[in-house]
Amino acid sequence: MAPLHLPVSIGHLRQCLTLLNSGHRCLHRTVASYTRVYANYLTVCQPSLLQSRRFCLQARSLQKEEPELTSVRYNVQRGNFARINSEDVAVFERLLPGRVIADPEELVGYNTDWLRMCRGSSRLLLRPKTTEEVSEVMKYCYSRNLAVMPQGGNTGLVGGSVPVFDEIILSTSLMNKIVSVDEISGTLVCQAGCVLEALNTHLSDVGLMMPLDLGAKGSCQIGGNISTNAGGLRLMRYGSLHGSVLGVEAVQADGTVLDCLSTLRKDNTGYDLKQLFIGSEGTLGIVTAVSILCPRKPQSINLAILGVSDFQNCLKALKEARGMLGEILSAFEFMDSPCIDLVRSNLNLTNPISDKPFYVLIETAGSNGAHDEEKLNLFLEKVLGEGIVEDGTVATDSTKIQSIWSIRERLAEALLHDGYVYKYDISLPLANFYDLVIDMRERVDDLATRVVAYGHLGDGNLHLNITSPTYDHDLLEKIEPFIYEWTSRYKGSISAEHGLGFKKKDFIHFSKTQKAVELMQQIKDLMDPKGILNPYKMLPDKYGD
Amino acid sequence: MAPLHLPVSIGHLRQCLTLLNSGHRCLHRTVASYTRVYANYLTVCQPSLLQSRRFCLQARSLQKEEPELTSVRYNVQRGNFARINSEDVAVFERLLPGRVIADPEELVGYNTDWLRMCRGSSRLLLRPKTTEEVSEVMKYCYSRNLAVMPQGGNTGLVGGSVPVFDEIILSTSLMNKIVSVDEISGTLVCQAGCVLEALNTHLSDVGLMMPLDLGAKGSCQIGGNISTNAGGLRLMRYGSLHGSVLGVEAVQADGTVLDCLSTLRKDNTGYDLKQLFIGSEGTLGIVTAVSILCPRKPQSINLAILGVSDFQNCLKALKEARGMLGEILSAFEFMDSPCIDLVRSNLNLTNPISDKPFYVLIETAGSNGAHDEEKLNLFLEKVLGEGIVEDGTVATDSTKIQSIWSIRERLAEALLHDGYVYKYDISLPLANFYDLVIDMRERVDDLATRVVAYGHLGDGNLHLNITSPTYDHDLLEKIEPFIYEWTSRYKGSISAEHGLGFKKKDFIHFSKTQKAVELMQQIKDLMDPKGILNPYKMLPDKYGD
Repeated sequence: MAPLHLPVSIGHLRQCLTLLNSGHRCLHRTVASYTRVYANYLTVCQPSLLQSRRFCLQARSLQKEEPELTSVRYNVQRGNFARINSEDVAVFERLLPGRVIADPEELVGYNTDWLRMCRGSSRLLLRPKTTEEVSEVMKYCYSRNLAVMPQGGNTGLVGGSVPVFDEIILSTSLMNKIVSVDEISGTLVCQAGCVLEALNTHLSDVGLMMPLDLGAKGSCQIGGNISTNAGGLRLMRYGSLHGSVLGVEAVQADGTVLDCLSTLRKDNTGYDLKQLFIGSEGTLGIVTAVSILCPRKPQSINLAILGVSDFQNCLKALKEARGMLGEILSAFEFMDSPCIDLVRSNLNLTNPISDKPFYVLIETAGSNGAHDEEKLNLFLEKVLGEGIVEDGTVATDSTKIQSIWSIRERLAEALLHDGYVYKYDISLPLANFYDLVIDMRERVDDLATRVVAYGHLGDGNLHLNITSPTYDHDLLEKIEPFIYEWTSRYKGSISAEHGLGFKKKDFIHFSKTQKAVELMQQIKDLMDPKGILNPYKMLPDKYGD
Repeated sequence: MAPLHLPVSIGHLRQCLTLLNSGHRCLHRTVASYTRVYANYLTVCQPSLLQSRRFCLQARSLQKEEPELTSVRYNVQRGNFARINSEDVAVFERLLPGRVIADPEELVGYNTDWLRMCRGSSRLLLRPKTTEEVSEVMKYCYSRNLAVMPQGGNTGLVGGSVPVFDEIILSTSLMNKIVSVDEISGTLVCQAGCVLEALNTHLSDVGLMMPLDLGAKGSCQIGGNISTNAGGLRLMRYGSLHGSVLGVEAVQADGTVLDCLSTLRKDNTGYDLKQLFIGSEGTLGIVTAVSILCPRKPQSINLAILGVSDFQNCLKALKEARGMLGEILSAFEFMDSPCIDLVRSNLNLTNPISDKPFYVLIETAGSNGAHDEEKLNLFLEKVLGEGIVEDGTVATDSTKIQSIWSIRERLAEALLHDGYVYKYDISLPLANFYDLVIDMRERVDDLATRVVAYGHLGDGNLHLNITSPTYDHDLLEKIEPFIYEWTSRYKGSISAEHGLGFKKKDFIHFSKTQKAVELMQQIKDLMDPKGILNPYKMLPDKYGD
């Protein structure tokens, strides 16, 4: 497929759809591909362009090249759950009048993940508005042994947010009320379906911000963020959700509402149950509301992009940044030179500095612009003076900042243009961080279109992406399990921030001990004895099943 | 008892002991009281003065006024555990040669908490050095149904760190090895028995610091800190241990070693099991090693003590500090005027500023001294100019900083001089924070010697202390359950950072729902089916028992 120069207008997308509808069969394949990329792009990067849900669904439904059913591709056996009958639908209609969707056309987008690598065959979408409704739904499903797939913004990358078979999709999209914002303590309380970017906009008015930031912020929901323990760009500064989430309200498999929605910064009364729902991908309960500690919005932001000659100097720059930028350092991102080649060829973006083997993006966020600028200048003088960094530019106005950030933020989108993407999200000790990329490049050789590495260096989190024109089983066998074995050897994590979902659940043993996995399964059995919550996800199939 | 002007020399304490030993019976009571206060003081505040463990134990054993046995005072029924026999002791001697203590004199200090309000009657102290030894001990205890009480520095305030009956005390004191420090990523890995202050000293050499700071830092151990989810003075800046602890190794009740000792900042592979051990007070497993993310040591520290006319202005000062000091704000502490009266009369300390109804202590910690000073000056100009604050002084050199901090840090010690202390550790929404103090003062009226309030205002954490010359049951009945009901009404926490331990376990329902407590009990039953780990603690007695 030819490179596609995004962003594009919604008008362009409409034209594509018109061509398809008018029967231009020769164009079908190309246009369908465009449509797929557009739909993905719009969903993740420009959700405001999607002026109506129906339009989005229409675009999706026109994509004739639906991905293979997950259950078929991976030869999964359906769990022993009941199948939905008309009586069930009638009950749900009573519980959620007008918010039970059974139209297969409408369900297409909810059954398919945004990478279009996983597809389920759910026939029912439920859209509750309140915790009580979720509780009633779960009570009924539990009594009937019906499997349920909780879904937020469906922006997950490991197949955790779509069904595998006919699980009922319980969407939190209509649970989007902000309950309260306490300006002094910085506490936000809201329903699980609030979109991350919308929360950030709301907080901005009172001088606060969300403690996390993701590429998918325009679509992802806070309940999903918590369920996947989302990391992202600000984690280095504001820490993980295990620290910043103050409270969670969740509905358990049997409909029990577990109210741990504390707004207190400190509360040592018993086991911290809310932690169980952070990162458990909807397998222990459905997060319905959250309370989260929000930092103050910075008064000044600066962004530098620096060119570096070798990886060791990237680490030196990180060490200097931690020391000299200290409390104002808010992001330290890393890209290798194939990243720049990628956005140049697939998105027509330009490199704001001269070409170098490595690049780091350093963001500062502080309460005093003059102080921040001085700190950043002192840092730059040092790293340039000592040859740690060879070239660089600093952005202080928001347009230039956004233009530099977009190089980093649009890498995932640019990769899709190559065709098929093998995505890996690895944590590694910094000393071994880039060795994996070198080894992988040598290993896959010319089977791959590219091997591209970027990530959150400040957190030891590598995003390693390998592309090929289409899905290539030989290439996959070159990559896996090699990459997991390599990661395990250096005591890394095979999923730093994306979670295990469906696609990585069977690799959990590369990062966790057998005893740990057994305890996880015991906790799952305790909290969801029938296994109806997001089945086929996160934990490997039970031994002996 | 007359006020005692601490700190004193070890020589003074030796004199007291000599007087006692030489038979000065008329002096006995006074000297024993002094000895008790000294021993507590030295253990908690000046552990370096305790030159030998034997000396400390001698001091303790001479305290004739042992507190009443917890089991008697609270009329507790012993659990259905086996009793230790000589064969058990022989097994432990084989597992831990020379590290099995059965001498009742030596056990006194381990059986009694430092507030001297709880006392158990354990006859056996085990001092393992390795995780494998802890595992072997637990395997044996599990097979024999012997109850075990894990103990770190024994600095807990709720009776959670001493036995109630004859539980075996498993001390982590000899597990004090630092495994590794990674300077670039800021990761420390160490055994559970490392003392907090020793860790901080060790980290200081490579420009790092521990992310938590407590009054008990000279004695408390990191394993205990994690087991109680300790908060302290730096939480506002560096967050809770749920965020900064990267990994935990723990031994379960049956001796299973659960290795979750990751050093990775991000690892989303399965349920985050380590969270279960943070704040569960040794009831789910014995923490044997930890991995923790350590921030960089600041280049500059400033401390201001400010006098404020009313509580609303304390909140205004907090809001301004968050905005203007932003990322360099590292502590915002609060004291009311009875605090200054207390340290003045009981410790002979002086108020460095003029007397005011309220005081706030504001600490900044940053990477650039000139910037920090400028930010602090701008803040002070504003709060003084607008009348939010009426008086104040700033310390920049370490001696003056320590002298101001000591007013705040020695409040707990000063309270002991009044006689008996009713200690409460409450989280409240800031809007209602001080109302509880006013209501309590009115309620207890002249039954109490003092009602003193201080705490971590930046975290909404109030330490409310009521004193009387001796234990007074009528006074207790004025305070409880009133204080818990009041806290519950405003959705506060009845234990912000001290935990529930033995003394508060039956009040858990004031802060947690019935459903939540039931789930906690289910998790306890899953992970410790015989209930041998730190019994009688944290969770209320089982229904129907």
